[in-house]
Amino acid sequence: MSFSVIGKPTRKRDGLEKVTGRTQYLHDLALPQLAHGAILRTRFPHARILHIDTGRAESLPGVLGVITAARVEQRPFGFARDHLALKGGPRDGGKVRCIRDEIAAVAATSDAIAQEALELITVEYEELPAVFDPDAALRPGAPLVHEELGSNLVDLRYHFSHGDVDEALARAAVVVEGTYRLNYVTTACLGTMAAMASWNPDGTLTMWSTTQVPFLYQRALADALGTTGDRVRVVQPPVGGNFGRGLDLYPIDIIAALLARHVGRPVKIAFERLEEFIASPTREPCVIRMRTAADGAGRLLARDAHVVIDNGAYVSWGSTTPYVMLATTAGLYRCPAVRFDTTIVYTNNLYSGSMRGYGNLESTFAVEAQMDDLAERLGMDRVAIRRLNASQAGDVNPQGSVITSCAMRECLDWVEQAIAQPPARQPRPGGKRGVGYAAMFHVGGGARVYRSDGCGAIVKLDDFGALSLLTGASEIGQGSETVLAMIVAEELGVPLERVAVINSDTAVKPWDVGAHASRTTFVAGNAALLAARELKQKLLALAATVMDERPGNLELVEGRVRVKGHPERSLPYERVVRAGHFRAGGRTLVAEAFYDPPNEMLSKDLRGNVSAAYGFAAQAVLVEVDVATGKVDVLKIASAHDVGRALNPPAAEGQIHGGIHMGLGYALSEELVIHEGRVLNPQFMEYALVPAGDMPEVVIRLIETVDEAGPFGAKGLGESGVIPVAAAVANAVKDAVGVRITELPLRPERVHRALAARESAKE
Amino acid sequence: MSFSVIGKPTRKRDGLEKVTGRTQYLHDLALPQLAHGAILRTRFPHARILHIDTGRAESLPGVLGVITAARVEQRPFGFARDHLALKGGPRDGGKVRCIRDEIAAVAATSDAIAQEALELITVEYEELPAVFDPDAALRPGAPLVHEELGSNLVDLRYHFSHGDVDEALARAAVVVEGTYRLNYVTTACLGTMAAMASWNPDGTLTMWSTTQVPFLYQRALADALGTTGDRVRVVQPPVGGNFGRGLDLYPIDIIAALLARHVGRPVKIAFERLEEFIASPTREPCVIRMRTAADGAGRLLARDAHVVIDNGAYVSWGSTTPYVMLATTAGLYRCPAVRFDTTIVYTNNLYSGSMRGYGNLESTFAVEAQMDDLAERLGMDRVAIRRLNASQAGDVNPQGSVITSCAMRECLDWVEQAIAQPPARQPRPGGKRGVGYAAMFHVGGGARVYRSDGCGAIVKLDDFGALSLLTGASEIGQGSETVLAMIVAEELGVPLERVAVINSDTAVKPWDVGAHASRTTFVAGNAALLAARELKQKLLALAATVMDERPGNLELVEGRVRVKGHPERSLPYERVVRAGHFRAGGRTLVAEAFYDPPNEMLSKDLRGNVSAAYGFAAQAVLVEVDVATGKVDVLKIASAHDVGRALNPPAAEGQIHGGIHMGLGYALSEELVIHEGRVLNPQFMEYALVPAGDMPEVVIRLIETVDEAGPFGAKGLGESGVIPVAAAVANAVKDAVGVRITELPLRPERVHRALAARESAKE
Repeated sequence: MSFSVIGKPTRKRDGLEKVTGRTQYLHDLALPQLAHGAILRTRFPHARILHIDTGRAESLPGVLGVITAARVEQRPFGFARDHLALKGGPRDGGKVRCIRDEIAAVAATSDAIAQEALELITVEYEELPAVFDPDAALRPGAPLVHEELGSNLVDLRYHFSHGDVDEALARAAVVVEGTYRLNYVTTACLGTMAAMASWNPDGTLTMWSTTQVPFLYQRALADALGTTGDRVRVVQPPVGGNFGRGLDLYPIDIIAALLARHVGRPVKIAFERLEEFIASPTREPCVIRMRTAADGAGRLLARDAHVVIDNGAYVSWGSTTPYVMLATTAGLYRCPAVRFDTTIVYTNNLYSGSMRGYGNLESTFAVEAQMDDLAERLGMDRVAIRRLNASQAGDVNPQGSVITSCAMRECLDWVEQAIAQPPARQPRPGGKRGVGYAAMFHVGGGARVYRSDGCGAIVKLDDFGALSLLTGASEIGQGSETVLAMIVAEELGVPLERVAVINSDTAVKPWDVGAHASRTTFVAGNAALLAARELKQKLLALAATVMDERPGNLELVEGRVRVKGHPERSLPYERVVRAGHFRAGGRTLVAEAFYDPPNEMLSKDLRGNVSAAYGFAAQAVLVEVDVATGKVDVLKIASAHDVGRALNPPAAEGQIHGGIHMGLGYALSEELVIHEGRVLNPQFMEYALVPAGDMPEVVIRLIETVDEAGPFGAKGLGESGVIPVAAAVANAVKDAVGVRITELPLRPERVHRALAARESAKE
Repeated sequence: MSFSVIGKPTRKRDGLEKVTGRTQYLHDLALPQLAHGAILRTRFPHARILHIDTGRAESLPGVLGVITAARVEQRPFGFARDHLALKGGPRDGGKVRCIRDEIAAVAATSDAIAQEALELITVEYEELPAVFDPDAALRPGAPLVHEELGSNLVDLRYHFSHGDVDEALARAAVVVEGTYRLNYVTTACLGTMAAMASWNPDGTLTMWSTTQVPFLYQRALADALGTTGDRVRVVQPPVGGNFGRGLDLYPIDIIAALLARHVGRPVKIAFERLEEFIASPTREPCVIRMRTAADGAGRLLARDAHVVIDNGAYVSWGSTTPYVMLATTAGLYRCPAVRFDTTIVYTNNLYSGSMRGYGNLESTFAVEAQMDDLAERLGMDRVAIRRLNASQAGDVNPQGSVITSCAMRECLDWVEQAIAQPPARQPRPGGKRGVGYAAMFHVGGGARVYRSDGCGAIVKLDDFGALSLLTGASEIGQGSETVLAMIVAEELGVPLERVAVINSDTAVKPWDVGAHASRTTFVAGNAALLAARELKQKLLALAATVMDERPGNLELVEGRVRVKGHPERSLPYERVVRAGHFRAGGRTLVAEAFYDPPNEMLSKDLRGNVSAAYGFAAQAVLVEVDVATGKVDVLKIASAHDVGRALNPPAAEGQIHGGIHMGLGYALSEELVIHEGRVLNPQFMEYALVPAGDMPEVVIRLIETVDEAGPFGAKGLGESGVIPVAAAVANAVKDAVGVRITELPLRPERVHRALAARESAKE
């Protein structure tokens, strides 16, 4: 199959606008009479609000209004409906439950006045005993986060069982086990969360949001405000990153709408950086206990995992990450018997949310540690044991995932060879080098977590040959506009620059679940492809009348409609459009499609083919550990990805590159440090992203398996780069200095402590 | 036929937003780094530009750039391609040709700086002899407006001949003749013209405009800038009036784009009020010489008209108004022989543009004066002679207009009766009362002036039952959003408030000619109706599977899908939508349509059925003339309109009411006074709109002929109210005081002078 657009390196279409400072983020937008909102949060992670005095704030000139839980009508929201936007009112026992909790909000004529007003609000608290550890939270007599529930155990459990795990453990040649601790990290988006609400005179609401799931958000926000989704219009200006942050509804959204209603003006709230660190959703902290059994040849026999999740104060989508943890546990490698269970526990810590990889980084960290441990115990090569147990096309794994295309072995082969090429940097004195491997398994053809996993597309073609694709998809920086335009241009055989993508307004764009689960290229891409195909049929049918040929004899190539076999008989396609339009009874060309992938929701026992295709990858990492300080330098990463088809290779590589950067932060430096419920490092000076200059040499290989269900064969890729990094780095550290570290990040003091502990154990 | 939405009084959906100050007009919009543009115009109506010194302006702090014709590349634009946006450069002989002519433009960081910079530009002129009168302009040796053309006669002539006019004039029982002078008036929109241009990093242009024909504008602007329409995106924020002003491309648009390109920033230009009076398009001034012949019974035999149009300095769409003047001359009343010709002449006056009624006010003024004159000569009743000659359904008039529905006689009957009811106000001493009549004939089913007269519509239905109608139509205050939403709601049987209308972005909305010729309700309405009908079929087909019934057995009534004859078996329609969406292989519902009315472009000899339906109306006016001062008070207007079907009666009445207001201004007070090419009254203190308090009693009758081609039977109405007013007022003045005044407006001094002239003639 030869392509004219697909597979060609193509510049991201929002790139130039962003680097030249012309992009209008939500932070830049204004409306007539716009008021600025600000949120007051609790001083204590667990307390009863005895009194809030807003009088001085309200009398500050420029303050338009102050709301508290007592003053507005609220409805619980969130995954478990255990959350109110404003806390401390009569509906939640007058309590706050974590340091993020919102207790008042101010609208003022300027942001500075709103901030000043916050400081004039006096709050009387009764501090309550708090609980910050899941184990402690489950002990009898522990303080209850939600008293009315009678327990801190969240009513949410992911229990899966396949095959006879106990029998397999008993007969295995080798069983490894470990406990793995994963901490809070945050998305650290350069564009903070923001919401702007405007109630229209007819009582409907228009909401400008940093959401990445506009239609789910529309429904959830409407619900929280006691209305219906048809009365909420959601507009998505460009965002400065999201990475899963925009997958849920948050108090900021509801408060903006409540404030706007209260003061009778549009209200915008945008987080300051400090607030973003404290109040934007995080990756969920968890402890994974895992055992893996293999036979003497290294074939996996069983895997048994139990995950304890610190749920924080409210249940969020973050608490549903075991869906993906289970998928990895049961599906990253062929494993005939699998047991998986969870304990999810309320604490007075921060609640989490969705974040790129969604549980997969955590479980891959555990699974891949144990693959190395098994190899070590069996004296096997670490790549060989992975290759032996790798998934293959045709597999159906214990959950019922049907593997249609799979290049996991090829990924392993490639990274093994690539990492063997020495890096540029010479070894440093005292530095010990090691190589680590990890593979990856993730949904790549949508993920049916909602009753529809579909996306709509409308294509309209104008007289100049310009196309507009109205897509349900959400561009959150991942390059979806570019790749969707490429798909339309390729299918129609027209120049790429003729295709505009419209995707930022729920009143305009067709439905879509949203940007999650690496599904946009696959699902929205298929929808765009179907609509383009339909449009092409219409165009060729029209051309047939204009050119006096049968439609079947015509083709659309390089912007011209040609008679097959007679390329000299051709017309520019836009001339065909005009011929159809500019005549009596003429018409313009519009086509639409909706694509819902052939996948299944998981059953109650967590079985089902949740995605229409699956992505695979492998990474190899070369590290150098300074044994004196414990500092881990990553020198090189080789990353191979089964992407089905690389529609826009530099964008695919960019996603992997960005994922590796995020994965290295998770592995080496990033941690949102929470002590007794408080965030100790809520700024970039203290929250250590990996600086650009510290990025290692990255070599990437895109392997094309041409998935039969994907658009031009493509599968999802957006989360693939980030997932294995921490696992591979930890394995490389083990290879370099011989210590298995089971908690992230691998900061120097942690590595140093581990080395010192081993030395003292030897003594 | 019973309706649930159609025919019900429905509030204009943009009304609340406008009266509460929440509407964001183009004047309110900003972009990052927005520069403010201002235009320098010539001081003389005809001159050669010897030198422009922009140095001092450029060195003013805050000035970003200054352009002149010498500095930018330009392409001629306009109906006759005789116009450059910036004048005085090498391409136009270094000349300016009217007082509106643009010779330089400044972009600055604020509007005040831009205005200040204009004053720092020094221009050296060589004044040229000028010509301000069409007759003088055609005399040998007259100064030439465009030397290269060798003549001031515009190469544009509307010549029509049907039947033997000379023979009819010869054998007629009576022939009346007259010369009618119509002057400049302006649209006086409360929102001035504005344009904001932003060149995108990829070299495409986004243009925010007050246009009312976005797709024609897109093409024309692209052409003027040397690019193609696919590289220009046009956004239409709400406008504060348009009335035809937005039917063309103007220098402001091109200059905004050129300035933006020059300074590398987005640029906005918005007219000040004074500039709006000077530089926004006007109704074209003309002189109509007309003769009408009738037999002894009052039956029309022939009409012969010659129109001289003062074209001003450049040819605009305003110079094409003879199309409509001819239609009225040949079609307002049955007339077997018609001759029509034009002389269109360049002068150094302002050029005109399109304005509501588009030539029809002028020719109706002449035709209706002669109907009265004929009645007087024949001793007939003035309504009787009109009734006798009125068009009827089934007529095909001399141009070939096919009259399908027509209630012209009923309109005449009704206004005759209505005006006979005495008004509230008692006669004043010295006041003489009179009644005048005029009828109206205008396109009401589109007007094929462009190769397509069509409009597209896309309807999407979401899970909450909310519908979005993406329409090509342009809302310019006429209420199109409201009526289009009503059409969709009615056809689908769903609540009106569930329908949103999206119509302001060429990248999003399907193609449409634009808002002109009273075509939106008819053409865009039919497109919306077809799309809604298609959606309904899809919805019922889906409901059939959900409810296990045949689609033909189902109906959609009051928001529920019901089994016919078993209303108890029903489902809310949105539940059907969700059932279709939220399942494996589900889909959402989208439908699209394009409607191009069955009408014809006029042939070279100006024949053809240009509209798919025609609107008719009659007005009767009661005036009181103060014979001492000549002041004309209009006490009452009765206005009856064949609207086919009144889809939204108060909106239809509102259009008529607004039209009457505009028509009264034309009749009594409004005139843009031009002396030697200069505008003497460019402000509202001097340009006398009719104050709201001076509005007479207005009684309106909407007559429903239910046109077979119209959406639910509706025909166009937007221009109907304004057209006959001046004619009826002049006829009423004649009736009151016996003088026939043939020039507008009927200001006191003109009436007084006519009365005095009659008295001195008597003496």
